[in-house]
Amino acid sequence: MSETTLIADTLPRAVEWENGELFLLDQTQLPQATVMEKQETAEQVWDSIRVLKVRGAPAIGVAGAYGLCVAMKDKTNLSLDEFIAEMDKQAAYLDSSRPTAVNLGWGLRRMVRVAKASGADSAESLFKVLVDEAVAIHEEDKKLCRGMGDNGAPLIREGMGILTHCNAGSLATSELGTATAPMYVAHSKGVNFRVYADETRPLLQGARLTSWELQKSGIDVTLITDNMAAHIMSQGLIDMVIVGTDRVAANGDVANKIGTMGVAILAKHFGIPFYVACPSSTIDMEMPSGAGIPIEEREDDEVTNFGARRTAPEGIKVRNPAFDVTPNEMVAGLITEKGIVTAPYTENLKKLFGGHND
Amino acid sequence: MSETTLIADTLPRAVEWENGELFLLDQTQLPQATVMEKQETAEQVWDSIRVLKVRGAPAIGVAGAYGLCVAMKDKTNLSLDEFIAEMDKQAAYLDSSRPTAVNLGWGLRRMVRVAKASGADSAESLFKVLVDEAVAIHEEDKKLCRGMGDNGAPLIREGMGILTHCNAGSLATSELGTATAPMYVAHSKGVNFRVYADETRPLLQGARLTSWELQKSGIDVTLITDNMAAHIMSQGLIDMVIVGTDRVAANGDVANKIGTMGVAILAKHFGIPFYVACPSSTIDMEMPSGAGIPIEEREDDEVTNFGARRTAPEGIKVRNPAFDVTPNEMVAGLITEKGIVTAPYTENLKKLFGGHND
Repeated sequence: MSETTLIADTLPRAVEWENGELFLLDQTQLPQATVMEKQETAEQVWDSIRVLKVRGAPAIGVAGAYGLCVAMKDKTNLSLDEFIAEMDKQAAYLDSSRPTAVNLGWGLRRMVRVAKASGADSAESLFKVLVDEAVAIHEEDKKLCRGMGDNGAPLIREGMGILTHCNAGSLATSELGTATAPMYVAHSKGVNFRVYADETRPLLQGARLTSWELQKSGIDVTLITDNMAAHIMSQGLIDMVIVGTDRVAANGDVANKIGTMGVAILAKHFGIPFYVACPSSTIDMEMPSGAGIPIEEREDDEVTNFGARRTAPEGIKVRNPAFDVTPNEMVAGLITEKGIVTAPYTENLKKLFGGHND
Repeated sequence: MSETTLIADTLPRAVEWENGELFLLDQTQLPQATVMEKQETAEQVWDSIRVLKVRGAPAIGVAGAYGLCVAMKDKTNLSLDEFIAEMDKQAAYLDSSRPTAVNLGWGLRRMVRVAKASGADSAESLFKVLVDEAVAIHEEDKKLCRGMGDNGAPLIREGMGILTHCNAGSLATSELGTATAPMYVAHSKGVNFRVYADETRPLLQGARLTSWELQKSGIDVTLITDNMAAHIMSQGLIDMVIVGTDRVAANGDVANKIGTMGVAILAKHFGIPFYVACPSSTIDMEMPSGAGIPIEEREDDEVTNFGARRTAPEGIKVRNPAFDVTPNEMVAGLITEKGIVTAPYTENLKKLFGGHND
């Protein structure tokens, strides 16, 4: 059994497929309660994705793929044609739960495509193809995370302090996470280091999720508010930053959770290397630079309210961009499953991914 | 009636003395409710200071001075000696409400000193001296704010975007505030500008207080989370930063609410001037540099909880420094009541304040 398998066993699982049943960890209840909810119907899966019980692009992709299995498992008595028609319908339905989640549509389209191309001659055998493909999607995502972990772990040396922002952890993916993968792998090799987790306003993914999963795995983690990062860096406590990303442009510009660019600027000021963990699927070779990446502006109440309590005056104007774009010149390296890509990014990304990725 | 008087009339008042009665705005209820609480006893004033109904160093100093009047107003039937003994006791009691608030002890010591030196020959006339001195302290603080406002306002030009952090506003002082004073004065002169208020975790003074008082005064204000500042700056929306300060060292290093240094570093990165509004009383000529300024570390639950709700896992390690120190080289200027001080600070502060301040 490899070290990576050993760490994976200690990590919380966002998505689990066991004996033909789908379980999703209800992340809205974290960190107060750890509840694995069995998903009985397509409607339940749709709702779980909609209300962010499962979140993080890779995890949503996997949940959607298994969700299609849940939707189809009591349909194997249909004729082959009826089964296929129903599968198309259910895939479209599940995809509508979060229209902007790229991985969700990608996973569902792949499921349907593979099923149709399988040549299976009965609903029952087609259902088996669906399950196998969902498991394959899940396993591939685990492998991407392990690749980033293996490539990034050597950057982490004994005694280091690492800052991370938002949750690009095991809760957002299938296993080791993206930004957290090098940490989990280094930890499994016995390297001692400290992690500082930005709480990540407005939705507090750092406080609720990252600090929870790192704490559970036995990694030394300290929670700070976002605006403490500069002070903590000025005290010499941070040797490296590792964050995840939602999309990397072909020139290496990095779109990620709001606040990431601020962390990158602070890191540059203090001479701290700023790394981005990203599976190759997140690198968008069709997007020439970060200037073209649309920035989602979310609801005001995420900023003005906290839970049920309003903390800002009524009628106050609010900005709530969910992401920002960190310019490539601030990125020390992109930790991918194929290796660490450094500047010049346009050239080096093209070399590694052959002009496009798949 | 001057323009400054006109603006002052529209501002919320943290501390009010009316017909021999002290009223404090209960800031813990903001922005949901605006409650001016009449202070009937020394115990009530002590409690109001303790639980942060009144906060902000200058406002606490003024509240403490009036608090001593509240404590002594039903003691004028005492003998002169008895009155003085009781005054000493009540001043020490009020000072114990927030031991670290420099202005509180300063104001109370001044009250007692002036009363004792007044030569008043009865309890009744001594009480009158106390009231006059409290009013004088209040008026002096208003004058400091107006001075900063008049000196800083010309920096604000039509159409500018200004970022501020925490609350250095009228709620923390006697009238125009410190960081907000130039804004209120410019606004009264008809200059149009936009303010972005950082919410300022963990205690949300920006969301609860700054955005509230600017909104009430008719200034165009937009609330953002602390980690959005870099993105907003990158969009070209910010032309200037103005913040307040808790203490400025003799070399111009600036201690202020946690997150201030991060804003200063971002401002430097984007070429945006970073100003600090500070009455001369905040400049500590005995403190050679910011390295000697102690940074208060506060309770974990400010970071792990939000109101009554816990948002971080049990047992998580937390850092909660309440302040940080911005190095002088990031400060474009110190807006004081005597004028705007620029680099080299050690030299220019010495020139303006003659080697020490009082």
